Amino acid sequence: MPKTLFKLDLSKPMEEQAHPGHNRWHPDIPSAFAVDPGTAFRMDCKEWTDGQIKNNDDSEDIRKVNLERVHVLSGPVYVNGAEPGDLLVVDILDVGAHQGYEWGFNGIFAKENGGSFLVDHYPEAQKSIWDFEGIYTTSRHVPGVKFAGIVHPGLIGVAPSMELLQEWNKREEELKATNPDRTPPLANLPTPESAVLGTLKGAEFDRVAAEGARTVPPRENGGNCDIKNLSKGSRIFFPVFVDGAKLSVGDLHFSQGDGEITFCGGIEMSGWIDLKVDVIKGGMAKYMIKDNPMFKPGPVDPLYSDFLVFEGISVDEKDGKQHYLDANTAFRRACLNAIEYLKTQGYTGEQAYMLLSSAPVEGRVAGIVDIPNACCTVAIPTQIFDKDITPK
Amino acid sequence: MPKTLFKLDLSKPMEEQAHPGHNRWHPDIPSAFAVDPGTAFRMDCKEWTDGQIKNNDDSEDIRKVNLERVHVLSGPVYVNGAEPGDLLVVDILDVGAHQGYEWGFNGIFAKENGGSFLVDHYPEAQKSIWDFEGIYTTSRHVPGVKFAGIVHPGLIGVAPSMELLQEWNKREEELKATNPDRTPPLANLPTPESAVLGTLKGAEFDRVAAEGARTVPPRENGGNCDIKNLSKGSRIFFPVFVDGAKLSVGDLHFSQGDGEITFCGGIEMSGWIDLKVDVIKGGMAKYMIKDNPMFKPGPVDPLYSDFLVFEGISVDEKDGKQHYLDANTAFRRACLNAIEYLKTQGYTGEQAYMLLSSAPVEGRVAGIVDIPNACCTVAIPTQIFDKDITPK
Amino acid sequence: MPKTLFKLDLSKPMEEQAHPGHNRWHPDIPSAFAVDPGTAFRMDCKEWTDGQIKNNDDSEDIRKVNLERVHVLSGPVYVNGAEPGDLLVVDILDVGAHQGYEWGFNGIFAKENGGSFLVDHYPEAQKSIWDFEGIYTTSRHVPGVKFAGIVHPGLIGVAPSMELLQEWNKREEELKATNPDRTPPLANLPTPESAVLGTLKGAEFDRVAAEGARTVPPRENGGNCDIKNLSKGSRIFFPVFVDGAKLSVGDLHFSQGDGEITFCGGIEMSGWIDLKVDVIKGGMAKYMIKDNPMFKPGPVDPLYSDFLVFEGISVDEKDGKQHYLDANTAFRRACLNAIEYLKTQGYTGEQAYMLLSSAPVEGRVAGIVDIPNACCTVAIPTQIFDKDITPK
Amino acid sequence: MPKTLFKLDLSKPMEEQAHPGHNRWHPDIPSAFAVDPGTAFRMDCKEWTDGQIKNNDDSEDIRKVNLERVHVLSGPVYVNGAEPGDLLVVDILDVGAHQGYEWGFNGIFAKENGGSFLVDHYPEAQKSIWDFEGIYTTSRHVPGVKFAGIVHPGLIGVAPSMELLQEWNKREEELKATNPDRTPPLANLPTPESAVLGTLKGAEFDRVAAEGARTVPPRENGGNCDIKNLSKGSRIFFPVFVDGAKLSVGDLHFSQGDGEITFCGGIEMSGWIDLKVDVIKGGMAKYMIKDNPMFKPGPVDPLYSDFLVFEGISVDEKDGKQHYLDANTAFRRACLNAIEYLKTQGYTGEQAYMLLSSAPVEGRVAGIVDIPNACCTVAIPTQIFDKDITPK
Repeated sequence: MPKTLFKLDLSKPMEEQAHPGHNRWHPDIPSAFAVDPGTAFRMDCKEWTDGQIKNNDDSEDIRKVNLERVHVLSGPVYVNGAEPGDLLVVDILDVGAHQGYEWGFNGIFAKENGGSFLVDHYPEAQKSIWDFEGIYTTSRHVPGVKFAGIVHPGLIGVAPSMELLQEWNKREEELKATNPDRTPPLANLPTPESAVLGTLKGAEFDRVAAEGARTVPPRENGGNCDIKNLSKGSRIFFPVFVDGAKLSVGDLHFSQGDGEITFCGGIEMSGWIDLKVDVIKGGMAKYMIKDNPMFKPGPVDPLYSDFLVFEGISVDEKDGKQHYLDANTAFRRACLNAIEYLKTQGYTGEQAYMLLSSAPVEGRVAGIVDIPNACCTVAIPTQIFDKDITPK
Repeated sequence: MPKTLFKLDLSKPMEEQAHPGHNRWHPDIPSAFAVDPGTAFRMDCKEWTDGQIKNNDDSEDIRKVNLERVHVLSGPVYVNGAEPGDLLVVDILDVGAHQGYEWGFNGIFAKENGGSFLVDHYPEAQKSIWDFEGIYTTSRHVPGVKFAGIVHPGLIGVAPSMELLQEWNKREEELKATNPDRTPPLANLPTPESAVLGTLKGAEFDRVAAEGARTVPPRENGGNCDIKNLSKGSRIFFPVFVDGAKLSVGDLHFSQGDGEITFCGGIEMSGWIDLKVDVIKGGMAKYMIKDNPMFKPGPVDPLYSDFLVFEGISVDEKDGKQHYLDANTAFRRACLNAIEYLKTQGYTGEQAYMLLSSAPVEGRVAGIVDIPNACCTVAIPTQIFDKDITPK
Repeated sequence: MPKTLFKLDLSKPMEEQAHPGHNRWHPDIPSAFAVDPGTAFRMDCKEWTDGQIKNNDDSEDIRKVNLERVHVLSGPVYVNGAEPGDLLVVDILDVGAHQGYEWGFNGIFAKENGGSFLVDHYPEAQKSIWDFEGIYTTSRHVPGVKFAGIVHPGLIGVAPSMELLQEWNKREEELKATNPDRTPPLANLPTPESAVLGTLKGAEFDRVAAEGARTVPPRENGGNCDIKNLSKGSRIFFPVFVDGAKLSVGDLHFSQGDGEITFCGGIEMSGWIDLKVDVIKGGMAKYMIKDNPMFKPGPVDPLYSDFLVFEGISVDEKDGKQHYLDANTAFRRACLNAIEYLKTQGYTGEQAYMLLSSAPVEGRVAGIVDIPNACCTVAIPTQIFDKDITPK
Repeated sequence: MPKTLFKLDLSKPMEEQAHPGHNRWHPDIPSAFAVDPGTAFRMDCKEWTDGQIKNNDDSEDIRKVNLERVHVLSGPVYVNGAEPGDLLVVDILDVGAHQGYEWGFNGIFAKENGGSFLVDHYPEAQKSIWDFEGIYTTSRHVPGVKFAGIVHPGLIGVAPSMELLQEWNKREEELKATNPDRTPPLANLPTPESAVLGTLKGAEFDRVAAEGARTVPPRENGGNCDIKNLSKGSRIFFPVFVDGAKLSVGDLHFSQGDGEITFCGGIEMSGWIDLKVDVIKGGMAKYMIKDNPMFKPGPVDPLYSDFLVFEGISVDEKDGKQHYLDANTAFRRACLNAIEYLKTQGYTGEQAYMLLSSAPVEGRVAGIVDIPNACCTVAIPTQIFDKDITPK
């Protein structure tokens, strides 16, 4: 494994680290270190809440989580020679857990704390702890399943330019302004509360904290994409918006189902990631990779080949209202159908919900043009269960 | 192969067949034939427009297509002993093209005729013809690609009960009423225009035509789900709403990309399908498969293992407007990103668009909770191209 | 599907066909038809024994099979422009069964009739009939299993040159001469008995029958390779030894386990195959494909991902004698270990043996250098069983 | 990762370790530690030659290797409660390289030192060094390829009983006696030369060294099976021959082609392995796993889906002599055909040979009954090359 260029003490909060990471996006957060193209290096990563969630059977920490603190990221890495207009090529060489931290958590956020994808059905906080044994994970809170993780960084991205940052803030402010009192808010705007900004201090800290975008959403820079297949062996092509590209990473997941539907999230873990960087000069225009990163998945995702697939359409389950080609509703219905099925196999709704968010579950947009119903599917690998769950 | 129990003359329109199929959903459309559980049988199917689209280089037929005619379906099949509350188990044993009809089409619907998923970017009608050679297809209109199809019925479903049909009509009317003058309409309501209703005639034809739901959307009965992985070897579990279940099938696709984004659609073909049916008594309650079918995919989908993946987020590409966790926008952005990339590889936008709708392209809901951006992905198998399309 | 250029009446023996095929290799067997490079065409094929084996429960036909009759092949196809030194490129577009012939057989040859790979353990003739339902097969003689076939031609090859034929005959005669009285013989030499040679008659028939090599072994021309993965979508590169290449094909298998260990064989079937041919001029020297064909498998083999793997080493099971890096003994031991295991799951030894020869079982050379033991493995997909066969 | 229960200093030879491992099989080698069923633990492993091969460009170390020293193993592990007649269940939780040792080697053994599978074609010693970057490896000695390893222990096994050991020694002596002066010998008999036997000393060391079986071949206890798919996530079922089972492991490979044809071997590495053990009481009789271990592969082997496949038959390439159903010859011919092809793509014969032994190459027994030719195949994944190697 390559040399560790970003070292963390996992027992301490991010601001107390020798070199703190950050939990906002801003071009002026100082780089943690610089590397030449072609360099491989290791970075430690803390789980996204910075240690708020404990390995126990009590969901109170999930219910009371401070979301201004997320996501604590490692970096930024300055890549020598990278300039706006280039593509930053990032290879995810490997990713794993540290000794003594071979566990992760999944949680359903409480409605009072923002909720999750199925908040109207599952408004209460709940937590499941997942133990890692090599490539596999199991949970004392979701019995009867064991699966190989597709370990990946939920969040990896480059710094925005000042212009891009302002565009983000503007559009998200405009969205929030359409319903400013909504809980949860339509968007999380910049806030100095619980901000960590690397080595910044004083007035510069205050300025950047006031301007820095929250890390919750994925954006043009990549960021919190929560793409489960962005795993070991993947190569990502990022548009570069600032000198040095300023790559940051965090929010490691041992595994995740498509959609990350419980919000918290996949199987969240601390750990390390080995990256290698390179630069394609002028690549943004050459390949028209301008609006979002592109990637090439690695070849070692677990191979499951037997699935049960649940369908959903864009009719609201509460009032039967017909929505127009609404993939969100269709995907929600597919998830709910899957949960109802798993309940016939002995799981509680909450267990089934957390399982969908944790296991290598495929969420697909099947049909998006068949007026007025979108059709989405959720595919659950049957081989992860210790019994046959197929109807007979 | 099993005995053909539903025979078509592919050169004739559906209403001129010896036993016509149907293009509306209604419990009172007479069954075409009855079978016992455990029976396997073959059915011929016409492509969904009933022969309106020709194997030539002119897109005029796509532009002028009569959509009141779609989808011409084969069936219904009455399954002896199936009753409301049961599950109908349908095995898709095999599916293929007839001698002399080894071709299909993909088309971008014109804005004036309803448009497609990317209608604002690609408002003009366009057509691509795809020739089949065994498991592979190629197109003179989209050069440089060759792929194995995941042949599947875009549409397969059971008859609704009268109550369910009324619920459909009510909710779709309510949706349409929110913007009654919109083109395309928000929903396609029942219309006697171009209706085909099996052997029904006279007053009964008129009544059923006035009530029968259009086949365009997927619904609780399955229907036009356009799920590309519902291919050979799959087993589907349908809720049963009427005596005999009344199974119908059509809209065969030689291949399709997730989303079927050009609307017309996958690679649309005429052909045959071999089905086998069985019944699980009382299965709807036992397995809680009530709202939509569940299925188990077959094991012979083409195995591609090298992909380029494009991401999209829920920010509108036209005005930069931020939408709230909108998977449709995110999926559209991912498609547009993919198309822009393919344009750097020598394709026109229209060719790239039709390729995304035709090839075994994976469309995924990656993250659906990261406020305010959903993240969707579109994965294109690189092995279908005759050159290396990866950035170097 | 392409035009049928080689048509058979499956109810008649090969010599009574309008245009008979052949069951010997010889450059002077007349071509059945000629095609240009780039042409696709269909050929009918009879099962390898020319109809000797019946769809019933009596193994007497296996016991008494006339092996001078095998393999009845379709062809030869003359490919215009192909010359010695070229590569003949053959695409297997598709392959399947004819209406009314959706079944196949596997048989253990009796010791008295030549025996099989495990002849010392299973000396008696036995037969299993396999019924096809779409992509799947099941057998009333081997209950509790269902699997998707990897349909393929067990035998496909080009004509040898006269020089190559003479080399074959010479080396096989020399082998047989080392133990001329052995039963079964060490090699099957040319014999006019039961020979079918296309349209040849009279003295020319007699000459070719006396010289023509038997089709049993694979050789430089391809031939009876029994490679289960040479299935739909595969592309083969054959060395060309005579003008026109003279391609022949037969011995279709619905499925086969690696090794085809019962000898008779995979799941043997009659059917049709769609081929497309092309030529790479001078390709033999350019790519050094001179001694045996090369191929590229298709992408639609059934995807099974859960296996039990049995190992074997080169120690004789009868007397404990140590053999030196003998892969045959190691593979036999692995097969025997698999059979003993399957017997604990309720199968008879004969059923398990036929299953190994019929299902998509992987046979591998794991280690071939670890003096004095070779190690071979046999991997059985667990998903083909209707119960969990894993130890608990 | 679990606690390290067998710790090595990789810079020191095995006999100088705090607790030395062993390089012979004998029931009386003392256990290194004991664990209860259900325990997971880590063991360090040295590469098989105990440090004789260096990370440089000189093959002299390969040429002069001392093979009496191999394989230096870690263990034995005493599993509490395991008794003869049980099955020992071993999960390979994970396996990897240590910091600073992220490299491995492949070597062709010189004819004078025993040679390799293709010794008559490649009699000279040669070495390739492979560098690891996360899941991938590349070599400065075999340019233009990069692949994901299937990391696995080439050797894992349990201790033989005294009876079984005597049977091994007897049968291998008898084999050697058939040609006692052969170089390399037909079998490597017990020798005290370079023996390491854990903590044994004095007379007991001498006795065990005189009796202990060499570790080179795979045998009933598992041992040096060199099965490339016995990788992360696999579960092995070993027959138990002595109290405590006495499990040992070593000979880690970052990757290997089927057959390990250069003998030295796969990509040989030092590293660590995480195991978990359990016991099935009386499992040998219940499951008839008596003669060799059985295993269930893990789900994270690299997924390559595009191959070139080379065939070989049992005709000797040197003199054209026909062998009878000889899988070794057929496999050798397939390897030689693959090498000749790779030479047309710019590789030397030696590079191609080492690549076949190092990359995830599939070696199959295709047909083993088609008298007189066996057919074996070698399948090379095309995606590992940085250019398209398919004929055009």
